[in-house]
Amino acid sequence: MYTYRCIVTKRDTRAYLPRPIEGVVMRRILQAGRIAGSSKDSQPCRLVVLRDAQWRAEIATCGRFAKHLPSAAVGIAICLPPTGSDFDAGRAAQNMMLAAWNEGITSCPISMHDQPCVTGKLGLPEGWRVCVVVALGYQDPSVPLGAGRKRPPLEEYVHEERW
Amino acid sequence: MYTYRCIVTKRDTRAYLPRPIEGVVMRRILQAGRIAGSSKDSQPCRLVVLRDAQWRAEIATCGRFAKHLPSAAVGIAICLPPTGSDFDAGRAAQNMMLAAWNEGITSCPISMHDQPCVTGKLGLPEGWRVCVVVALGYQDPSVPLGAGRKRPPLEEYVHEERW
Repeated sequence: MYTYRCIVTKRDTRAYLPRPIEGVVMRRILQAGRIAGSSKDSQPCRLVVLRDAQWRAEIATCGRFAKHLPSAAVGIAICLPPTGSDFDAGRAAQNMMLAAWNEGITSCPISMHDQPCVTGKLGLPEGWRVCVVVALGYQDPSVPLGAGRKRPPLEEYVHEERW
Repeated sequence: MYTYRCIVTKRDTRAYLPRPIEGVVMRRILQAGRIAGSSKDSQPCRLVVLRDAQWRAEIATCGRFAKHLPSAAVGIAICLPPTGSDFDAGRAAQNMMLAAWNEGITSCPISMHDQPCVTGKLGLPEGWRVCVVVALGYQDPSVPLGAGRKRPPLEEYVHEERW
């Protein structure tokens, strides 16, 4: 898909086909995260890929809105060290979600509200946290993508020179 | 450009040609930010576009590593309300930087270390902050893109099921 089309058609959705993601495609998605730029080239993020559905159901108990994690094809936990920034995690996440959407795979980031729960289960090193878990799966074509809440018009979204 | 190629060739660079960004291209970049997904569809970000070079030189005094902001073609300040997350700002920033790179425009996010300085100059509403200013300009082909610091191998970047 062309880049601009991929960017503007990407929606965060939670209805997935029961179809696994092929190894070569998964590798492309992970590489997209790995190559993402970061503040001072610090490369803070590390990933934990959650493939087992039962394991994902257990991880889902650590978030308040995580019901779609078990029904996804896979989850990717984006983990940050104490000094890592959510901004850099957002860049890596968007790279992966666009690389996925480019292959017809939709996605939705999930907050893990109970950090001791998720960091304990995943066995993260002391001080690390899970910024989000990204749920990924092939888009179910029977469920419309939806437009989401209306965006503010460009003239309201953008200020010129000053607020 | 195809999406995956755009993602994996994108580098954060600071050497720009003295060439302005056409209006239609700029609009595409801004739309890419506007369409970005966000937590609970809250759409927290707003942008301030910095076109005037002298004005950018003044804004650059609010960051410690902002020397390349005046020499860019344009800067985009990504602004967040008190409840806005840096993760969502990172998603919008990556969307814009990829939409730009798709047109041969390189970019680099700049931290604004002195927030009272930058929010005062830009006249942001009470409680808002500038997450980053993204510098954008056509890539100077005489300066090699560079590989950046070596990334950890995929096997080290990614854990399976548990850390």
